Amino acid sequence: MSEAEDLRHMRHALTLGARGLGRTWPNPAVGCVIVRDGRIVGRGWTQPGGRPHAEVMALRQAGEAARGATAYVTLEPCSHHGKTPPCAEALISAGLSRVVVALGDPDPRVNGRGFAMLQSAGVEVVAGLCDAEARAQQQGFLSKVTLDRPMVTLKLAMSWDGRIATATGESQWITGPMARRRVHAMRGTHDAVLVGGGTARADDPTLTIRGLGVDHQPVRLVMSRRLDLPLDSHLARTAGEVPVWLLHGPEAAPELISAWQGLGAELIEVPVTQGQLDAEAALQALGARGLTRVFCEGGGALAASLLSAGLADHVALFTAGLGIGAEGRPGLGALGLDRLAEAPRYQLEKLEQIGPDALSLWARIT
Amino acid sequence: MSEAEDLRHMRHALTLGARGLGRTWPNPAVGCVIVRDGRIVGRGWTQPGGRPHAEVMALRQAGEAARGATAYVTLEPCSHHGKTPPCAEALISAGLSRVVVALGDPDPRVNGRGFAMLQSAGVEVVAGLCDAEARAQQQGFLSKVTLDRPMVTLKLAMSWDGRIATATGESQWITGPMARRRVHAMRGTHDAVLVGGGTARADDPTLTIRGLGVDHQPVRLVMSRRLDLPLDSHLARTAGEVPVWLLHGPEAAPELISAWQGLGAELIEVPVTQGQLDAEAALQALGARGLTRVFCEGGGALAASLLSAGLADHVALFTAGLGIGAEGRPGLGALGLDRLAEAPRYQLEKLEQIGPDALSLWARIT
Repeated sequence: MSEAEDLRHMRHALTLGARGLGRTWPNPAVGCVIVRDGRIVGRGWTQPGGRPHAEVMALRQAGEAARGATAYVTLEPCSHHGKTPPCAEALISAGLSRVVVALGDPDPRVNGRGFAMLQSAGVEVVAGLCDAEARAQQQGFLSKVTLDRPMVTLKLAMSWDGRIATATGESQWITGPMARRRVHAMRGTHDAVLVGGGTARADDPTLTIRGLGVDHQPVRLVMSRRLDLPLDSHLARTAGEVPVWLLHGPEAAPELISAWQGLGAELIEVPVTQGQLDAEAALQALGARGLTRVFCEGGGALAASLLSAGLADHVALFTAGLGIGAEGRPGLGALGLDRLAEAPRYQLEKLEQIGPDALSLWARIT
Repeated sequence: MSEAEDLRHMRHALTLGARGLGRTWPNPAVGCVIVRDGRIVGRGWTQPGGRPHAEVMALRQAGEAARGATAYVTLEPCSHHGKTPPCAEALISAGLSRVVVALGDPDPRVNGRGFAMLQSAGVEVVAGLCDAEARAQQQGFLSKVTLDRPMVTLKLAMSWDGRIATATGESQWITGPMARRRVHAMRGTHDAVLVGGGTARADDPTLTIRGLGVDHQPVRLVMSRRLDLPLDSHLARTAGEVPVWLLHGPEAAPELISAWQGLGAELIEVPVTQGQLDAEAALQALGARGLTRVFCEGGGALAASLLSAGLADHVALFTAGLGIGAEGRPGLGALGLDRLAEAPRYQLEKLEQIGPDALSLWARIT
């Protein structure tokens, strides 16, 4: 097998892996391609809910053709007996002669044991092919395992001058319908969508994915210290159908907690720091519940608290073609910077025209 | 000559025309290519200061080879006797058999007469090839002729959230060195660079083009109602070398006017509207002096007055990869919008990564 072929098949596996983003939590979204004599005999990706794993799907498709074949897997095959036997074992039983892996799995239950299991069974193992791409794809899972919190993408949609509404609060049509459609697609590649309580009250959002033929919905998260959210809101009325998790402070009234529980919401208590819900503690609570990728859609105070705590891993900035002026409402709250050098810096990853608007994607420089 | 060949040669002429942008005012920057038997025999563009015209340059190069050839010109050849004989006459004398023109010249002294002169001499005339591209290239000249003011490009360089400094005024390193270099290149394609008095006082800018091997400099314009600009500033010290024009209100002190005149600056009195220099009157004064393309670099109050008066034809937005927060200094002043629908809307023309920063170019939807 030539290097170019290895590269081509691993890229294929990464493309398959991407299909699971947003729907495999708490498990990673993995892709697998099985190739025998230059022919693809099996393709698989982690299924919704996290299993079956990618390798099992690809092996089922390959059947007997897997014997003597090469498997390309975007993440180290698991080595532990969980709800199902380990994938490393499945690959060995199927008679694979070579396994190419993009990235080791830092999960303490795996962490090299998958490689070791394969090698001790005489399977040739190549590790590290396309590891940067795999690392980017697995950022949410890696964040959960190594930082105990999900990866966070912060969406900002503002005028040139960072405003989201006029002084009187008029805010319709800042960005266009194609940008809103793209936001729905972004929701689909994240496990959960997060807004602050102010946004939940002001906009009465549904936070679902609509109009894209997607058959899954992200968990809907609201951070509301006092849990003072309307019980007749869209979120309240649909909490029984699509999960709603509410992060609240210790002072939330017990009757509100009961009311939301009665509606089907999950309640998560988070400590308060400097008058606000502690953003890091909130994310750790979400990581402990298995979330790997969270998409935050504001408002400005929550966005500012994520940015200033260094918790926004990515920023998706939609810029609409207008100025609103200094008296307009800012889309980002106060950051409390004393010096410019304290501002977390991001690098530009991608630029895209979305209808009449600009989309820039930024990654935190760590 | 096939259509594809015509297109190719006109695009070539447009490329040549672009070389003159920022250096031919009060004349348009025109390009000309002369082709005989499929071979390019002459190329020309409007020379610095506006003459010789592009056609004359190309004809000189072509010499006798122009006889029976086709000329591609980005703007209708002039028909009036000014400092030099008209270009239409020069093309006729040189024996051109065909002239392809992108765009008619709305200058009342030309406005179809160039075409008529050529046609009545038996020269075949084709008009309108690449007229959209030519219109975009000639926007400054067209603006001067039809709106009595130069085209204005407004540069904004801000954080994601539209800030240019922290609350304490710290503003270094918002955008990177490559963005600053690009700003210098943009200055070079404009006839003049404009800032408000506050920016001139705060930043003590030179507003020249540096480090790009450019051998011309734009006129430096400052709008300062009271003319309260430091007489020991960079602009003051270099006003004798690179033109400085100061737009001031009727209340500017006569001794300040004399002092600046003594330094070599040109003084332009502009009426005041609602406590500010009238932006439209200021631009008309600049148009009357021949400027066709003005590059405004702020500050926020001037930027806001241009935007709200509908005078910013293009916006060049540099976005740096950081948030500064709602307490930071806004890069755009108050626009006084009552309703969002009043905000002038722009369409996205181009997106570009400039080092670590994003550059988006926007054109006003008219």
